[in-house]
Amino acid sequence: MMPATSAIDPLWVWGEDADQPRLLHSMLRIRDVDAALRFYCDGLGMRVLDRYDIAAGRFSILFLSYAGYRDGPAALELTWNWDRDEDYTHGSGYGHVAIGVPDVAAMWARLPAYGGQQGSPPKAMMPGAPELAFVRDPDGYAIELIQINRASTAG
Amino acid sequence: MMPATSAIDPLWVWGEDADQPRLLHSMLRIRDVDAALRFYCDGLGMRVLDRYDIAAGRFSILFLSYAGYRDGPAALELTWNWDRDEDYTHGSGYGHVAIGVPDVAAMWARLPAYGGQQGSPPKAMMPGAPELAFVRDPDGYAIELIQINRASTAG
Repeated sequence: MMPATSAIDPLWVWGEDADQPRLLHSMLRIRDVDAALRFYCDGLGMRVLDRYDIAAGRFSILFLSYAGYRDGPAALELTWNWDRDEDYTHGSGYGHVAIGVPDVAAMWARLPAYGGQQGSPPKAMMPGAPELAFVRDPDGYAIELIQINRASTAG
Repeated sequence: MMPATSAIDPLWVWGEDADQPRLLHSMLRIRDVDAALRFYCDGLGMRVLDRYDIAAGRFSILFLSYAGYRDGPAALELTWNWDRDEDYTHGSGYGHVAIGVPDVAAMWARLPAYGGQQGSPPKAMMPGAPELAFVRDPDGYAIELIQINRASTAG
């Protein structure tokens, strides 16, 4: 059941004073919530901002982020359809969700223990550029890891 | 050709002092840059933070956002493969990219003039919840519009 409006209202506002558009989230459909949370929260370090289990529609939506709705970068929304019994197809259009991490090598090495499948290892596209690496989440979506703390790879 | 490292370095840092992970962008593959920019920039009001035309790989990547890399919500990355001659497939896994807008009804009405295809019209999922609407971008990706300024629909 959805929470009462009074309870969810603050969570849905996403910038009530905003007079400018903003990017809020990207939504992906997943098949196994536990596996997804193990990867995104335990592995990548996100937290669940909100979770709505909608019995009437037999689906759940979860909003994950590193920050809050208002003051942080956009969130990831994961949708779990309770009765879905086959994997989603990916098509060729979706590329990836990119996550900046302080130590890309450490994160890339860490994620297989949390259900991630390693793709290309950390590598700078050119001298001086940040290192990039790819993993796939438990549903197979490509996740790009980008080094955001230059000190970690300098020297 | 890529810009010199000295030129791109500030653009790639995405939080050089960050010691916490952050969501950076979601990437989608597009077929027509002009059509995409008309929709996302002229229509939705984003701006191009950076564009790299990589002749060696025959592709372009464009980073779009409402804010800068460091201090704003995550960006949208669009990838254009110059020699791609057929539409990308979408699969069933990708859901949407959500954009908060001050006036969802006005934005929903506005976008067909910029190559957007209207989906479900603005509607609150329940009393007191923000209005949501859907459009498809020129490549057919679902874009969710969410009302972020409550004043626009109050009263």
